[in-house]
This record gives sequence, C-alpha cells and structure tokens, in this order.
Amino acid sequence: MSAFKIALVQSRAHKEREENIKEAISSVGKASALGVNIVCLPELFLTRYFCQSEDTNCFDLAEPIPGPATHRLCVEAKKRGVFIICPLFERRASGVYHNSLVLIDPAGEISGIYRKMHIPDDPGYFEKFYFAPGDTGFSCFETGFAKIGTLICWDQWYPEAARIASLKGAEIIFYPTAIGWRTNEDERSKSTQLEAWKTVQRAHAISNGIYVAAVNRVGFEESGENGGGINFWGNSFVCDPQGTVICEASGKREEIILAEIDLRKLEETRRNWPFLRDRRIDAYSELRQRFIDNNPST
Amino acid sequence: MSAFKIALVQSRAHKEREENIKEAISSVGKASALGVNIVCLPELFLTRYFCQSEDTNCFDLAEPIPGPATHRLCVEAKKRGVFIICPLFERRASGVYHNSLVLIDPAGEISGIYRKMHIPDDPGYFEKFYFAPGDTGFSCFETGFAKIGTLICWDQWYPEAARIASLKGAEIIFYPTAIGWRTNEDERSKSTQLEAWKTVQRAHAISNGIYVAAVNRVGFEESGENGGGINFWGNSFVCDPQGTVICEASGKREEIILAEIDLRKLEETRRNWPFLRDRRIDAYSELRQRFIDNNPST
Repeated sequence: MSAFKIALVQSRAHKEREENIKEAISSVGKASALGVNIVCLPELFLTRYFCQSEDTNCFDLAEPIPGPATHRLCVEAKKRGVFIICPLFERRASGVYHNSLVLIDPAGEISGIYRKMHIPDDPGYFEKFYFAPGDTGFSCFETGFAKIGTLICWDQWYPEAARIASLKGAEIIFYPTAIGWRTNEDERSKSTQLEAWKTVQRAHAISNGIYVAAVNRVGFEESGENGGGINFWGNSFVCDPQGTVICEASGKREEIILAEIDLRKLEETRRNWPFLRDRRIDAYSELRQRFIDNNPST
Repeated sequence: MSAFKIALVQSRAHKEREENIKEAISSVGKASALGVNIVCLPELFLTRYFCQSEDTNCFDLAEPIPGPATHRLCVEAKKRGVFIICPLFERRASGVYHNSLVLIDPAGEISGIYRKMHIPDDPGYFEKFYFAPGDTGFSCFETGFAKIGTLICWDQWYPEAARIASLKGAEIIFYPTAIGWRTNEDERSKSTQLEAWKTVQRAHAISNGIYVAAVNRVGFEESGENGGGINFWGNSFVCDPQGTVICEASGKREEIILAEIDLRKLEETRRNWPFLRDRRIDAYSELRQRFIDNNPST
C-alpha cells in the first residue's frame, strides 16, 4: 500500500488528566471515522506542561509503560483499528523518569517505545530536572503503511536525529511537541521563533526525502508566577519530502488535521534529489565531538 | 571586532575566461570601495558550467593552486585589503581534479583551500565525471573578523557538513553555488526547488546558530543539445543565526549584495537557542553508516 492517511491531534491541555484522556480517545474516534490509519497525539498530552517550574510533587504525574493511560489507548486502538502515537510522562523506576511515547498498534498492543533523546533546559522549560535522557536511540517502527520515526519536541532541532531515523528507514517522522511563547516576548521574536521551528523541520524532510509531521498543543498555561506562562503556538503541520507544507493547523484552536501520505512521492523525490547516495560517511566522525577546539586553519 | 561586512558577487558566466576574471576583479574593487571585508565569488566562476556534458577536453579548463587565477586574485586582495573566496576548477595532478576554492587573505596570500566533499551527479550536472571527492574535510578558517566555513554547492544539502564546520568554530558558512532549472521544468517544480534550496540552508543557520551566505550565478547556459540548458536561478542570500534572510539578490540580474555580520547576534541566538549544548554525541555513531538495514523494531 503506498497511500494512506494520518491525523494530528492539536489539543489544549485541561487541568484534569481524565478530561485530557477522554478528549484524546474522542479524537482518535473522530479521526478513525475519517479513514485515518495513524493518529498522533501531542507531547505530554495527559497534563498541563508542568515543566514551567521544578517541583518534586510533579513526579506523581508520571506513570509506567504499560500503565493506566496506555491501557485505555490500547483498547481504543483495537476498537478503531488504528495506530496511535501516545506520548506520556514515563515512570521507569524511582528516580528514573522519561519524556516518552509509545506506538500502539491496531491489535491494541504496544509495539514500540521511544524516550526523548535531546532534553532541553531553558527558562520555562525545565526538562532536565524531570527527564533522564532517552536510551532508546532514534527509533524506526514498521506499521505496514510506512516505516515511521518518532521523535519528541526538542529533538526537532537536531538534524542528527532525523538523519539516523531516516537511515533506519523512516518514511515519516512524527514530532509530538509542546512549544510556545513565554509571556512578554515581542511580536517579531514570536514570528521568528515560529518560522524557525517550521523551517528546521521542513529541512529535515528535504535533506532526507521524507514526510514530517509536527503535532503541537495550543492554549495559554500559567506558570504560577505573576500571571506569566506559556502560550503554546499550535501550527501543527505535515510537509512532504520536498518540504512543501501539505496541511497545517491554526495557532489557537483545537483541531484534528489530516494528511494523505503517498510513498510514491517519496520515491520520486529521492530519485530526483539523491542526497542519501552522496553522503561522505568516511568524513563524518567529528559529528561525535562536542566541539572541536583550536581548529581554524589560519 | 564583532561587526563587519561581506559581499556576495552574483554573476553571469561569459564564454571567455578572461572576461569572467576581469569582472570578478572589478566586483572585488567595487565591494571593497563599499567597506567590505570578505568577498565571495560563485562556484566555478571562471567558466560556463561545463558539467552539462562529459567531455575530456574540458579538463583543459582546470588550473593548479596556486596558478594563474589565484595569482591575479591574490594581487587584487592585497591591493584592496580584503579576503576573497575564490572557487575554481583545480588541476591537482594528471587525472586528479577537484571542484575547489581558495581563501585569499588581505596580504595577498592563499590562506586556505577547500575541496568540495559532496559531489553530485544528475542529468545536466555530471560532476562525478570531472571532480574527485574532496579530501580536505569540512574546513574552518580564521579571518580575524570571524571564523568562516567554506562549502560548495551540493554540500549545502548536507546538515553533516554544516555541523562539522560549526563545531570547528565557523560563525559564517559561505556556499559558492551553481544551481538552476533545466529546460522544460514546470513552474511549480521550479518554485519548489528554489524554496527547498533556501529552506535547507536557512535550517543550517538555525540548527547551528550561525550566519549562512549562498552565492549563485545567473543566466541561461546552453547544454549544446537541442537548445536545452540550465537557467541558473540567482537568489543569492545571507541569513542570520535565526534563519532570517537579511539580504537577497534577484533571480536574473548580476548583483553584488552586502550584509553586515554581527557576532553579538550569534552569541545572543546561541544563548537563547542552546542547541549545541544538548547534542547526544554518545548516540550519533550511526551517522557514519550508508543505510541501516532491517532495522524497524516491529
């Protein structure tokens, strides 16, 4: 099968976990009624974005894999006959937590797990406090429709991650995300950030000849400090292997957006832009260095 | 010094080599009169783009480094007190030719050489016939104004090249280029290609927090077959470390475009987007593989 449909669920996080999971299940139902084969939920969709502050009580929000959330989504995946990409705050052991996702297959089984490899830490995004760096590597999973790579948010800024997933065969990379503007950023800075976020992901599609699907949340969430917080910018989108955006969501509304994925387009693009053929794998060892000191030649 | 000026010389290649070198020297003079510190010429600017066909006679167009062209540009660099990035078809030995560039310093000396690492081969761009793959690695040169990376054309599609140059300290990457549309491509395909070309290079700026400067030629050059050929698309541009285009040329005219480079902007961008900090250098070894077979996990 070379063409099939995916759905990105752009949603707002409510305070109550139960409300979020019910909405997610409802969205999976709606998407499957529209003939979708793979549904992707946003990063950490079960909760508000708690990483705006460092609070040990927030570790209570984590759950194991398999666990309560994956159980309910496995039931739904089986009922609807769809794949679900389900991101969640994973409790792996006492003191070992991850920003993870599971791939649930149409039989209702967990068929893959990915743990966010690149962990940010910036004002308002204190993720290094909560999440141990992932140890899954950059995964690629077979769905029968396509091989899919699943990365999470901050990973989207790293061409290394997209490249390795592509070398493993990924034909689409999904990026569940929680990204927005902090209070008091100016309008110009906001549009620069949003444009950069789209550009860098479209470039992964181009340089690898793959589809890319980014799934963000929307809505303002308070940080608890002086009325500040993050306004999550939505703008979920799918682009094709030439980097052309084929569907996109608004910046403010909850939406389910659909895209048809055609692997013939991927084949055609890679025949005309054969970037993978000419990689200089003999010359890339320095990519494993943090920085290369004292290098300039003159 | 944290701010200085660069010039990109977008030019049309004439049939006569002497005319091309005279125009290049004239452009360097004009740019230096405008207070520019570094001038970049387009890929293979001394000749028409001979790679549209495979012809052993074309090896006569190559010249050694140092050689006649570098000699004249060294004289001009010293006279004007500027750096010149001078791309040329290099004859290194009988049967060993490269698509190269030299960095000439304001003292009139050759202070760096780069040999194109990624070599394309597509209809109309038969470069693998002419050019041995470079063996310089992805260089970074100190100019006193900034550390600069110098890559060439097809390299621009490879995030690996931009990353390694950045890890070596490059604060600007220059991409001398010869890219265009072949006869009979439709308008939609043309705009997709141009947009992808800009997007992937802007993404290198974003993911590395550097300036990027792409310098293309303009004009139609016949292939010698049925009136076909390549219409080189110009559109030379410079973008800042957030990927915002700060100057750009037209698609058809010969132009010298100038950009002010401010390394404080680079510092500020990397403080706010600290992508280099979080690279998973422990997990990138697979980047040295051509492809990773039989990987999908399910």
